[in-house]
Amino acid sequence: MDVELVSIGDELLLGHTIDTNAAFFAREAAALGIRVVRRATVGDGAEEIASAVRDALDRTGAVITSGGLGPTADDLTKASIAELFGRGMYRDEAIVERLRARWKARGWPGELPEANTMQAMIPEGATILENQHGSAPGIWLDDAHGRWVAMLPGVPREFRGMTRDTLLPRLVARGADGTVIRSRTLRTTGIAESAVADALGELAKDPMGVSLAYLPGWEGVDLRLTVRDVPAEEAAARLDAAATALRGKVGRWVYGEDEADLSVLVLEALRSRGMRIAVAESCTGGMLGMRLTAIPGSSDVVHGGVIAYDNAVKVRQLGVPEATLQAHGAVSEETARAMAGGVRGLLGVDVGVGITGIAGPGGGSAEKPVGTFCVAVDVQGAVRSFRTTSVGDRHEVRQRATQAALSLVLKALDG
Amino acid sequence: MDVELVSIGDELLLGHTIDTNAAFFAREAAALGIRVVRRATVGDGAEEIASAVRDALDRTGAVITSGGLGPTADDLTKASIAELFGRGMYRDEAIVERLRARWKARGWPGELPEANTMQAMIPEGATILENQHGSAPGIWLDDAHGRWVAMLPGVPREFRGMTRDTLLPRLVARGADGTVIRSRTLRTTGIAESAVADALGELAKDPMGVSLAYLPGWEGVDLRLTVRDVPAEEAAARLDAAATALRGKVGRWVYGEDEADLSVLVLEALRSRGMRIAVAESCTGGMLGMRLTAIPGSSDVVHGGVIAYDNAVKVRQLGVPEATLQAHGAVSEETARAMAGGVRGLLGVDVGVGITGIAGPGGGSAEKPVGTFCVAVDVQGAVRSFRTTSVGDRHEVRQRATQAALSLVLKALDG
Repeated sequence: MDVELVSIGDELLLGHTIDTNAAFFAREAAALGIRVVRRATVGDGAEEIASAVRDALDRTGAVITSGGLGPTADDLTKASIAELFGRGMYRDEAIVERLRARWKARGWPGELPEANTMQAMIPEGATILENQHGSAPGIWLDDAHGRWVAMLPGVPREFRGMTRDTLLPRLVARGADGTVIRSRTLRTTGIAESAVADALGELAKDPMGVSLAYLPGWEGVDLRLTVRDVPAEEAAARLDAAATALRGKVGRWVYGEDEADLSVLVLEALRSRGMRIAVAESCTGGMLGMRLTAIPGSSDVVHGGVIAYDNAVKVRQLGVPEATLQAHGAVSEETARAMAGGVRGLLGVDVGVGITGIAGPGGGSAEKPVGTFCVAVDVQGAVRSFRTTSVGDRHEVRQRATQAALSLVLKALDG
Repeated sequence: MDVELVSIGDELLLGHTIDTNAAFFAREAAALGIRVVRRATVGDGAEEIASAVRDALDRTGAVITSGGLGPTADDLTKASIAELFGRGMYRDEAIVERLRARWKARGWPGELPEANTMQAMIPEGATILENQHGSAPGIWLDDAHGRWVAMLPGVPREFRGMTRDTLLPRLVARGADGTVIRSRTLRTTGIAESAVADALGELAKDPMGVSLAYLPGWEGVDLRLTVRDVPAEEAAARLDAAATALRGKVGRWVYGEDEADLSVLVLEALRSRGMRIAVAESCTGGMLGMRLTAIPGSSDVVHGGVIAYDNAVKVRQLGVPEATLQAHGAVSEETARAMAGGVRGLLGVDVGVGITGIAGPGGGSAEKPVGTFCVAVDVQGAVRSFRTTSVGDRHEVRQRATQAALSLVLKALDG
């Protein structure tokens, strides 16, 4: 089943609010084989709403709107769509009663304001979609040709709740045809998008009948495989086969699937070995420590660290030899290695990590351009390190250096 | 000037990625009087892209696309829009050369992969929009009727950079109608949303004819003032008057305006006093260090720090007395004060900061519930501290603790 979404609200169009409802709906719907084929965002004007819904009805015939069901004058969704369907509006007294009871139950002062009874105005011939998460009911309106619009409130909590408990069950009951859309994501790090495509070779052009999207970011390049419009079992089998084939080509850069977080994998790898970790950070200034300790329960594995932003801290706290700094510079594999070993000794743990680099925008040179960073991992005295140059602004370079350090810890632990 | 946005990408439609580019563009454009009147989101298919762009051209005649300019087979934006305009494509050898030079400058292995030269395919008659933030150039295509499409990359860093330095200046040069939408934001911290409204009193109900929005978040409560559809000078005068009135009521909680970042203010305050800072972080695990060093040029002020996640680090590196930990617990003002003083002495700087808390989800107690944190600042031996309990999940508690620490540094420096 194909549907379109129309998100309504000046605040969305002005960019003051990010539309998270649309992404939520798409994910939930995909699991049931319902595909969002287009989204539109319009302001609160009656004509804008009608125009976007009319276009979507003409194209797809199945439209979900969010927003514009509230009690204020700029909530025009129902009226403008009712007009599109050539329907009048009536005041539903049962809903008015429910609004009054809700007002009282909440202990709000006085009587329900007259403005709020706007929410009880219903297009003729509509089906009311009960809202257990707020006051404005949803509306379902269809025509003689089987085309329909489902109107949901825009407040994320209400939109999400109603999507799950009311709208999706209704769509499934209408006859989802037993097919699904399923995705599976292989997460890679340490390899560029184009290099992934080269490594995949023929598989990049025809990934075994599933669609393949490259999603590059600071965490690495995610490879999303998607299968549409097939029964759930076939979808799983085809994704399995494609994922296995992809791993055969780029498996050495794959660190996990779907929502996998390298921090979690590092903590698990350390925990299973009974090892503790400490970090020594220069250009990342604490970002690696922050990422590791972002995970609840990390305290059994993460001991602490030293933010060695100034070279004096590298020398005095971490014991990086002055000679190393002079011979190779603060941004060098040698310094990163000395930092990793230094923090491991200082805090008395099994694994030390060192990061040093040039995050920019200043400080680069011909030999060491902005984006250059070095990471080193010392596991009980066995040290690995590498140097690379990454793209991106200051924040992204720091993110990429942190991700690279986590990746190197995993590799070092695996031997 | 009215424009439409078309965001392109299966990952957006499937809900795997939230579209932040559209909101960014809308905000930046509004400040110049350019209004986004509709947004559409479509998948990576050539026909979908062409359909959405065709509709937007028919309606508004001015279209900005994001996404689908990368080097892989699912990047179809240029080809499908070129076809819509009845244009062929050619390979721009100057761009190929630039891509090759960029590849080499980054020190990436081997030659530029053939796949990447896709980015040098340009529709005939197009204007190339230089991309200083990544490899894929933007494209500007217009027709004999003055209708145009600007194609930008979807990677947020590149989209944002090109919007600011290339696209918006181009649109402004084409001519807007003389009125603007202007916003100005007062940033507060350390006061709750309802308390702001109380403090504003009558001003909350009628903020001098401008609209006032409360935007609470982990950084504090932002107060956004907005004026629409007036000439730039009038907008500035009205915002000035309203901002001055608001500052009269809540000025003591205002730390800056618009994009003001407390980290920047702290760095400036330290720099102007010739002081250096070091951090000692427990529950934030490096987040404060990360925030301070996120600012370019911070190295003259930020010396470093200690991530004292384990109590052993608090005792051995920072010199927190065992007796303090036993008497008051690791999460106490006493421990935070000892951490601040400890790191100041250890690294030999003027200002030390200590943070300790319970970020959750576990570890809370009746006396110290999840969300409790203590921050302390030691300025040349004069120590200030406080304890509070914040709302939010683990990440938000850590963000709020970091923000509170920065705020306390500013207060301590101001005496």
